[in-house]
Amino acid sequence: MNNVALLASFKEQAALIDAVMEEDLAIVQSPLLAEIIRHAIFQGGKRIRPLLTLLAASLVGTPPADTSRLAISFEYLHAASLLHDDVIDHATLRRGAKTANTIWGMEPVILAGDYLHAHAMALASEVGGPTGMALIGRATAAMVEAEFLQMHNAQEILLSEENYFQVLMGKTAALIAAACEAGIAHNQGTAGQRLALRAYGTNLGLAFQIVDDLLDYLGDPAKTGKAVGNDFQEGKMTLPLIKTLARAEAKDREALVGLLKATPQERGRQLALAQALMEKYQGFALARAKAEALLAEALAGLAIFGEAQAKEPLAGLAHYVLSRDK
Amino acid sequence: MNNVALLASFKEQAALIDAVMEEDLAIVQSPLLAEIIRHAIFQGGKRIRPLLTLLAASLVGTPPADTSRLAISFEYLHAASLLHDDVIDHATLRRGAKTANTIWGMEPVILAGDYLHAHAMALASEVGGPTGMALIGRATAAMVEAEFLQMHNAQEILLSEENYFQVLMGKTAALIAAACEAGIAHNQGTAGQRLALRAYGTNLGLAFQIVDDLLDYLGDPAKTGKAVGNDFQEGKMTLPLIKTLARAEAKDREALVGLLKATPQERGRQLALAQALMEKYQGFALARAKAEALLAEALAGLAIFGEAQAKEPLAGLAHYVLSRDK
Repeated sequence: MNNVALLASFKEQAALIDAVMEEDLAIVQSPLLAEIIRHAIFQGGKRIRPLLTLLAASLVGTPPADTSRLAISFEYLHAASLLHDDVIDHATLRRGAKTANTIWGMEPVILAGDYLHAHAMALASEVGGPTGMALIGRATAAMVEAEFLQMHNAQEILLSEENYFQVLMGKTAALIAAACEAGIAHNQGTAGQRLALRAYGTNLGLAFQIVDDLLDYLGDPAKTGKAVGNDFQEGKMTLPLIKTLARAEAKDREALVGLLKATPQERGRQLALAQALMEKYQGFALARAKAEALLAEALAGLAIFGEAQAKEPLAGLAHYVLSRDK
Repeated sequence: MNNVALLASFKEQAALIDAVMEEDLAIVQSPLLAEIIRHAIFQGGKRIRPLLTLLAASLVGTPPADTSRLAISFEYLHAASLLHDDVIDHATLRRGAKTANTIWGMEPVILAGDYLHAHAMALASEVGGPTGMALIGRATAAMVEAEFLQMHNAQEILLSEENYFQVLMGKTAALIAAACEAGIAHNQGTAGQRLALRAYGTNLGLAFQIVDDLLDYLGDPAKTGKAVGNDFQEGKMTLPLIKTLARAEAKDREALVGLLKATPQERGRQLALAQALMEKYQGFALARAKAEALLAEALAGLAIFGEAQAKEPLAGLAHYVLSRDK
């Protein structure tokens, strides 16, 4: 299958996933609750997590019909965490649209997140049994622990690459890995196959986040829906910056550290300087190389499946993650 | 068993429940997360929900050893919902102590609520299987739906008794009923026995909340940890007020409605007047009578268990709910 055909098949499956969510969400009674949940879910989103559950399940044969209902539980949990994240960050925009908290305020949005969260877990348990539940439960715990680790890290100006990856493991990779593992477990995958999918998901998740970090500096705002340099302005330490700081000469390093200690306004004004320094020390190139290495590792993890054709979409998805522009 | 012995046995079991939670919470990694969760759980609390799970399980024989771990999942879910409630309400005090959001701010407290919530569901699923999970999942959905119903109701000045009870069913009774039903289900209770426990829990939960409403007007702040008339000042329509408005003569009714449309400050100043009117129209006595009727119904629901001695603590708990002063 070529890339175009692959992307078309992803889109088709994403539409199927949307239809399953549409049907499932008929369970919500309060009109306002339903409206907030619909906003959280159908306002864009690439459906990476449920897609992975379905693709992982397909690796070992035709998945059971209810796999799509297990798959959407991971999209729900993701959406629930974004709802709470946006409340916590007082975020006003996501995917180019107003955030739910901007439209409806904090109160109903915290509650809608709770609802989606509970519903995700109930669904994972109902369809995926104790394994599905354990996987989504552990991923949720890892996500919250990572947020606390991040808060703790925020007290230091400089973040080590090790701490950066530790946060990423919980914040992004844990849920993606769980979505992959739950899929193959649901289709009677062996312990070894589950481990391989967990490794694939973890590496993919890490790479996914690094690409996000790169898009923040290098993306086209018309496509990403976010202003360029947002992370830098917020003083967020992401991989291009960490790589740059680790290699910069004393003078350049001091300039960057100075900016990190300055106000967000000052960082906004000096964005071009920061970007030039990241170019100079290959911060972007090194971060990209790391993402590529992680994706190579993700694919290597699938070696135990031999030449199975069903591997193709998972390989394709890894390439898509690397080449995406939004 | 007399009342004193019964209360002593409740205290003993609450201490056991606390010990089980202490041990279980060792799983939390981040020190700050652990601190917030400990504050949420060990800062008082009567352990009514886990106690009910244990007592319900005991109705049909000695419960399995892991019943206490199923039981604590209901205390966790309760604590998680209080954490989010206090963030939403910007509450500063609970049980006479500073709320978690006052001490640590909104961000970590929303996340700690998410963690406890997820952990509660994982535990209910792990110990209680699909039944435990379905019960806690449905209770959570009912709690959130009730919050949305309450928000919707808040747009009207006058709340009907029917709407009041509809909110109560979801906000308080659903989780208490689930705690009861999960207990007996975990000890192989029959469908009929589960239904009886669900009815008991629902009625007990409704009565519990009405007693809370009464304590708000009539309780001793030194014991309740809350200022007298807090609900009225916030313009919250609870049963004593609803009963009063339904019976008051036109002039008195207008005076009360006027106060409900006034500012909280004005309501605070006129609390004595409102209380006098509630006395005059027997708002308190009627609310109390309703709580008593609900508790009688709760006990009647246990008739299918015959003269079993194990019924005694559940009857005792119902009487305790009615007579409690905090």
